Amino acid sequence: MAKPPRLDEFQRIARFFAPLAGEGALCLKDDVALIDGPAGTQYVLKTDAIVEGVHFFPDDPPGQVAQKLLRVNLSDLAAKGAMPVGYLLTTALTVRQGEAWLAKFSAGLAADQRKYSIMLLGGDSTRTKGTATLSVTAIGRIAKGTAPLRGGARPGDAIYMTGTLGDAALGLSVAKGGLKNRSAAHRRFLLDRYRLPQPRLDLGRKIARVATAAMDISDGLVADLGHICEVSGVAAIVETARLPLSQAARVALKADPRLLEIILTGGDDYEILFTARAVPGRLPVTQIGRIEKGQGVTVLDGDGKKLRFKQSGYRHF
Amino acid sequence: MAKPPRLDEFQRIARFFAPLAGEGALCLKDDVALIDGPAGTQYVLKTDAIVEGVHFFPDDPPGQVAQKLLRVNLSDLAAKGAMPVGYLLTTALTVRQGEAWLAKFSAGLAADQRKYSIMLLGGDSTRTKGTATLSVTAIGRIAKGTAPLRGGARPGDAIYMTGTLGDAALGLSVAKGGLKNRSAAHRRFLLDRYRLPQPRLDLGRKIARVATAAMDISDGLVADLGHICEVSGVAAIVETARLPLSQAARVALKADPRLLEIILTGGDDYEILFTARAVPGRLPVTQIGRIEKGQGVTVLDGDGKKLRFKQSGYRHF
Repeated sequence: MAKPPRLDEFQRIARFFAPLAGEGALCLKDDVALIDGPAGTQYVLKTDAIVEGVHFFPDDPPGQVAQKLLRVNLSDLAAKGAMPVGYLLTTALTVRQGEAWLAKFSAGLAADQRKYSIMLLGGDSTRTKGTATLSVTAIGRIAKGTAPLRGGARPGDAIYMTGTLGDAALGLSVAKGGLKNRSAAHRRFLLDRYRLPQPRLDLGRKIARVATAAMDISDGLVADLGHICEVSGVAAIVETARLPLSQAARVALKADPRLLEIILTGGDDYEILFTARAVPGRLPVTQIGRIEKGQGVTVLDGDGKKLRFKQSGYRHF
Repeated sequence: MAKPPRLDEFQRIARFFAPLAGEGALCLKDDVALIDGPAGTQYVLKTDAIVEGVHFFPDDPPGQVAQKLLRVNLSDLAAKGAMPVGYLLTTALTVRQGEAWLAKFSAGLAADQRKYSIMLLGGDSTRTKGTATLSVTAIGRIAKGTAPLRGGARPGDAIYMTGTLGDAALGLSVAKGGLKNRSAAHRRFLLDRYRLPQPRLDLGRKIARVATAAMDISDGLVADLGHICEVSGVAAIVETARLPLSQAARVALKADPRLLEIILTGGDDYEILFTARAVPGRLPVTQIGRIEKGQGVTVLDGDGKKLRFKQSGYRHF
């Protein structure tokens, strides 16, 4: 008897977890949950786990592991315009994470607590014999009803993003031994962008005032824009000529145009992707496309030709 | 050069995590965190992780794993008198947890959502190659300032607990192949008490009105009462003659008096342990001892002689 095809993560969530979701969970179609806070506020709740061997490695600097864990959650708060309040931490650690590791890990947390004015609120600490798994539940605060969600994009909106695209995915290539013919400075820059996200918290609060939909780019631009399109019931057109690229990414792409695929579909950027009718000129964001009627994400190359994406890859029609 | 002695979990928390804790975290000296909610309420937040091979096993019924994960967190809310609101769930699963496993797991969650009137608020779902790790952040609500914490026990208070003591620890013995000479019905009862905690939510709300300190019994009576004594700066006297025992535990203890150690120090009861000046007569709880000046937990046997505990064991003076 043929085995039924395995469900991917999104299908597993849709089948097994979405039916459990209640008010505040936004049908699990958003990155965050919302619950009422004091005096006309709401708490924005986000939980994310990282796994040894998948999201980090035993010889990664422990302080950096701590900060990445915290920041991937803060990035979701940033996309909702939230002011971070604090976080809960669960750690299931192996013998590989001894006291020296823990000391550096907690120093990393302490540094980011100062940087982002947040505090540890509670947690759970347990042992495991297998792989270490760490999770954070981050809590932020907004004025009630002001969070831009995934479902608000409308035809006629423009599509914007903060920062630059693809550096983290290129940095992952560097970490894996790729991009050897790039300069040491560029390789270092890309690697840093991969290793340590910079949640756009200040900018996120300004964006929330004008955005019709917003999320952070964690799975890659095409996939994440696809989430906005699906929940909003709209289509997106992205023009590659408009994409904000760092100097390092621009030079790498010029030397090897095939890197465009990685830039467009790689993850871990942790920039804010959003839609809006318009934005104030002083907002340091880049328009990368527009929302239209229809469905799906269309990417136009420099000549205005459509690129088509299959999962994480793409090909010309 | 001698290796420094390894810190236990409490020492690791005290050294590496307590310095990170802020307002609302209760210095990590409580099981829960508190943040302000709407209209004079507070949210009670609790996070707990379970690990494959440590807290559950690949062939445990998945629905029961789900319910245990949820209920150990709800039990902490119960001890603070909270009304559960919802929970966030992170799952890092292996190939051993396939779709059939997930279907049963989510059915277990669905059943408990109905039982406890709670909803899934959000989560994160990831793969791991090692051991599965699951964590829940449970959220409950109380009237502001009404949660009985660990630090409020005072000399002259009586010590009480809900339900019966030691069934879960004896159930664990059954699961490991012990207590073979007990009846099938008693073995089944004890096993159920180990496998499926019954968070005392309704009773917890009544207890919160009178308790000076409260927590749930998860690490064992002696250890958990020790936490209350340490944070409150008091001593506790427990009389074994007063301990509430189930019929199954009573029969087993009569047959083998050495089981008293397991009953007093075994974990996983998830009953509420609390101190109060007095309780209303209709409250179905049992007084098991009293709070005095001093420090530490003293247990008196049936003849009024002191038992002394070393870690999880005990011996006569």
